Amino acid sequence: MSTKRIIVIGGSAAGPKAASRARRLDENAEITIIQKASDLSMASCGYPYYVGGFFDDRNQLLCSPAGVVRDSKFFWNAKKIFTHVNTEVTSIHPKAKTVDFVNIVSGEKGSMEYDKLIIATGATPRKPPIPGIELEGVTTLQSLPDADYLRKVRDEGKIKKAVVIGGGLIGIETVEALNLAGIEITLVELLPQLLTFIDKHLARLVEKYVQTKANVILQNGVASFLGENGKLVAVKLNDGTEIPCDLAVVAIGVIPNSKLAKEAGLTIGATGGVVVDGYMQTSDTDIYAVGDCIEIPNLITHKPVHAPYGDLANLQGRVAGENVILGNVSKFQGTIQTGICKVFDYGVGSTGLSEQNAIKMGYTNIETVVNASLDKPGFMHGNLLITKLVVEKSNGLILGAQVLGPGDVSKQVAIWAMAIKGKLTVDDMANADLPYAPPFSLAIDHSIATAHIMQNKLKGFFKGISAEELKNKLNAKESMLLLDVRNPDEYEQMRIGVGEKLIPLGQLRKRLEELPEDKNTEIITWCKISLRGYEAALILQSNGYTNVKVLEGGIMVWPWTREK
Amino acid sequence: MSTKRIIVIGGSAAGPKAASRARRLDENAEITIIQKASDLSMASCGYPYYVGGFFDDRNQLLCSPAGVVRDSKFFWNAKKIFTHVNTEVTSIHPKAKTVDFVNIVSGEKGSMEYDKLIIATGATPRKPPIPGIELEGVTTLQSLPDADYLRKVRDEGKIKKAVVIGGGLIGIETVEALNLAGIEITLVELLPQLLTFIDKHLARLVEKYVQTKANVILQNGVASFLGENGKLVAVKLNDGTEIPCDLAVVAIGVIPNSKLAKEAGLTIGATGGVVVDGYMQTSDTDIYAVGDCIEIPNLITHKPVHAPYGDLANLQGRVAGENVILGNVSKFQGTIQTGICKVFDYGVGSTGLSEQNAIKMGYTNIETVVNASLDKPGFMHGNLLITKLVVEKSNGLILGAQVLGPGDVSKQVAIWAMAIKGKLTVDDMANADLPYAPPFSLAIDHSIATAHIMQNKLKGFFKGISAEELKNKLNAKESMLLLDVRNPDEYEQMRIGVGEKLIPLGQLRKRLEELPEDKNTEIITWCKISLRGYEAALILQSNGYTNVKVLEGGIMVWPWTREK
Repeated sequence: MSTKRIIVIGGSAAGPKAASRARRLDENAEITIIQKASDLSMASCGYPYYVGGFFDDRNQLLCSPAGVVRDSKFFWNAKKIFTHVNTEVTSIHPKAKTVDFVNIVSGEKGSMEYDKLIIATGATPRKPPIPGIELEGVTTLQSLPDADYLRKVRDEGKIKKAVVIGGGLIGIETVEALNLAGIEITLVELLPQLLTFIDKHLARLVEKYVQTKANVILQNGVASFLGENGKLVAVKLNDGTEIPCDLAVVAIGVIPNSKLAKEAGLTIGATGGVVVDGYMQTSDTDIYAVGDCIEIPNLITHKPVHAPYGDLANLQGRVAGENVILGNVSKFQGTIQTGICKVFDYGVGSTGLSEQNAIKMGYTNIETVVNASLDKPGFMHGNLLITKLVVEKSNGLILGAQVLGPGDVSKQVAIWAMAIKGKLTVDDMANADLPYAPPFSLAIDHSIATAHIMQNKLKGFFKGISAEELKNKLNAKESMLLLDVRNPDEYEQMRIGVGEKLIPLGQLRKRLEELPEDKNTEIITWCKISLRGYEAALILQSNGYTNVKVLEGGIMVWPWTREK
Repeated sequence: MSTKRIIVIGGSAAGPKAASRARRLDENAEITIIQKASDLSMASCGYPYYVGGFFDDRNQLLCSPAGVVRDSKFFWNAKKIFTHVNTEVTSIHPKAKTVDFVNIVSGEKGSMEYDKLIIATGATPRKPPIPGIELEGVTTLQSLPDADYLRKVRDEGKIKKAVVIGGGLIGIETVEALNLAGIEITLVELLPQLLTFIDKHLARLVEKYVQTKANVILQNGVASFLGENGKLVAVKLNDGTEIPCDLAVVAIGVIPNSKLAKEAGLTIGATGGVVVDGYMQTSDTDIYAVGDCIEIPNLITHKPVHAPYGDLANLQGRVAGENVILGNVSKFQGTIQTGICKVFDYGVGSTGLSEQNAIKMGYTNIETVVNASLDKPGFMHGNLLITKLVVEKSNGLILGAQVLGPGDVSKQVAIWAMAIKGKLTVDDMANADLPYAPPFSLAIDHSIATAHIMQNKLKGFFKGISAEELKNKLNAKESMLLLDVRNPDEYEQMRIGVGEKLIPLGQLRKRLEELPEDKNTEIITWCKISLRGYEAALILQSNGYTNVKVLEGGIMVWPWTREK
């Protein structure tokens, strides 16, 4: 067998993973990575934490677990992989099976033959042609030079005010990083909510929390960047507002770098990503593509999505690296779009479909529930978790879960991601066998309790109302009885304050005569997290009230200002 | 419909849960809990943490999430449930459908009729008839009075030396609690390992860690407790050793309290637990049983087990509570015996079958792998995780996983528990879609990396050797080449030191001539975690070496003393 020549275009995440996997399966293959940037194997998801000062040694972004910087020498010595950095592939010739490239520092050009090609060209931040976008002080946070620039901003401490444009994952992470650098921040988002991978109501809770760290402006975009002597001095919004600042970070999403593939005649999907099959093979059998430049199926909706997640890039790279050596033996099936981000002391994560996404995808028969509880017992200093679960109504199949709060969000999202992977139903989750001990979880884990509430809802024991629905009713001045069933001292400490009556759960059975005579009166009950609210609703129902609803998640998920 | 009379025997965990669930589904049922202890709804899993000083307010062990002590008044007011504390049921009459009881304080006797009975009598610590066991200073840590006694020990600070008997979950938790109370501890275990729910090799790693906090003695039991004036002064072991101490805590497991059920003629299983079906129904259709007094199926082996876990007790209680009201509509299928415990800064957890248990259960065709890595990137201050995965060799079905280390063990065990629940295979896990961001995990999560190694092993790319096997070979003075492939500075800092040769991975291809000419020489490679060890093995194999193995988990899982 002759030596296999493998070229990998792109040296950040998916590319090096593919190259390394190929090497492990074939010591004799000739493997080359062509990388446009000057660095290799950058931990790009770590940039916000470098900027935010979680660590100081920039090399940690480039190191192997053993602490060796993964440069060209490392790739050659440890993995026998050639790497050309500062080198851009300018064209792919699928028939000739060659790529042309140019060294962007020296200008030197060349061409190289391949037997198998792996495209891992990544994605580029969207930078719309807004006037002034070229000003000094306007940047993105996607490349290592971006991170270097923003880290210098932190270290110099000269910049006092910044605007972050875009309330998605990177935008939010940038807000945290710059806040930790002591910079006053305004976050501007065009849409009516932050973090569109979660539902609006939960996003509102995140917004409320981020408001304590930065000024948040929704439903407003940037009209222009205003400068003096080539330097940014302010951001002008669509509504005319001018926000003085010395720094603006644009974080409004990324676009797959599929131009090269397109020019080579490969099929490009509706999302703009290169189309691949489960083997990571493009429309050309000798060309594979992986990472942020491709589109992949959403495993729930079976529709293609652009899912630029670092973990998936690595998994795809591993599959492509195996397939170019062994033939198509390994598959990457797709994604359920599991994601998480740190927002100061909160985690915010999601897996599967949100309610909004499910509706957008045509699901008509879904049920949702919001649950709030601690992640572990109060005596072990538990922290709050809020979960919204989305299931198919007919069979209880779990479609998605969103989790947020200062509690252990990561574990919860992982649990639900695995539940979706295993195609589990609410009934399966209701008796899940998870690791319990007080330092780690409640006796009934938050995820299981969420499944229990959903079971109650599906069986008709529990009628819920979301905070949004209640807010709409209040705005419409609908007539209803609002019932807070906590204790007076809890009520004095904290309350929504929208006209609710206080009857502690323990007194409810004795004070039924205080309730309206009309058993059809709409009654909405709650407590801090709505467990007692649920018990109160059951008491009222068994006393003949026909229209009782529980405020899901209780006071803890009320995303607007409370009276107290 | 006439009012349903429900009696629940036992008021700790499963009992109150069943009673509460029953109440929520039937406001009119007459529900009574008969509880032998003086307290109700005790968070008994929290006792070690109360003793250890994680919190000071004893009431937190008895509180609802809203901070109200769950006493008889609480149960009546909030849940309309009668409770009789300090009351022991002395007999059940299934034909008459009555129970006899006695108040153990007043001596008053009575009898009560039921329509449905739920037995939740729990379990009792094993206390073998060792001479001196009645001495002052010999205790268990199972009841609230036990916890009160040991907390007083902590607060008084008089006791300096203690012996903990039993290296299981409670024993280990007790060691931590007493260590935090400033007491010098000797842990005595009859078996050759601690924590028998994990495999011996991993238990040895736990032992090594516990040794830094307490004196650990294995394969030795207690012959007698020695006293002076009725007070414990020493523990005498089977081998004659006397350990002076003022306190001994016996933690050698629990026995299901099934005597009452047995006397009533209900079927008792081989484990000593009450036999129930999926509805939690006993051999008498009007009697249900839940919690630590029953046996349930292991869902992997389909054999009955006694699984006294607090989380399962609650889930069973919920099912029984529902079924006594609605008829048999809800099922609890069984357990995969997921458990976790905190050992100072380590977590140790397990789900499904360990290798030892799988073998004991007759599995003959299993594969295992040990993986060590950080839980999140080094730059985010990641901590070590060690996982041993057990799968069926023929189809890659996941049978069990054990995880330990200072890293996020709880999430890992939850992931594997869900994988088993979903009947997933290694191939499924290899492309799992878990929440990734640097504050929470590696780009390739530890669990997924473990699946990757297992895939490599099942596909024949990776030949592993466990630390135990290597140790046996060393003891047998087998001829082999041991190869550490880290860098010289790493080697200087830390090394096993069993005659290994150092050739850094990056130099291996150039230094092949230093290796034995005989290509059949057994070579064992490693690095810190054995990723580089794996790459080295692949290089050697492709250079014709036929007998190369990787030390699984690398130096991090070497459970014996290292040279450095």
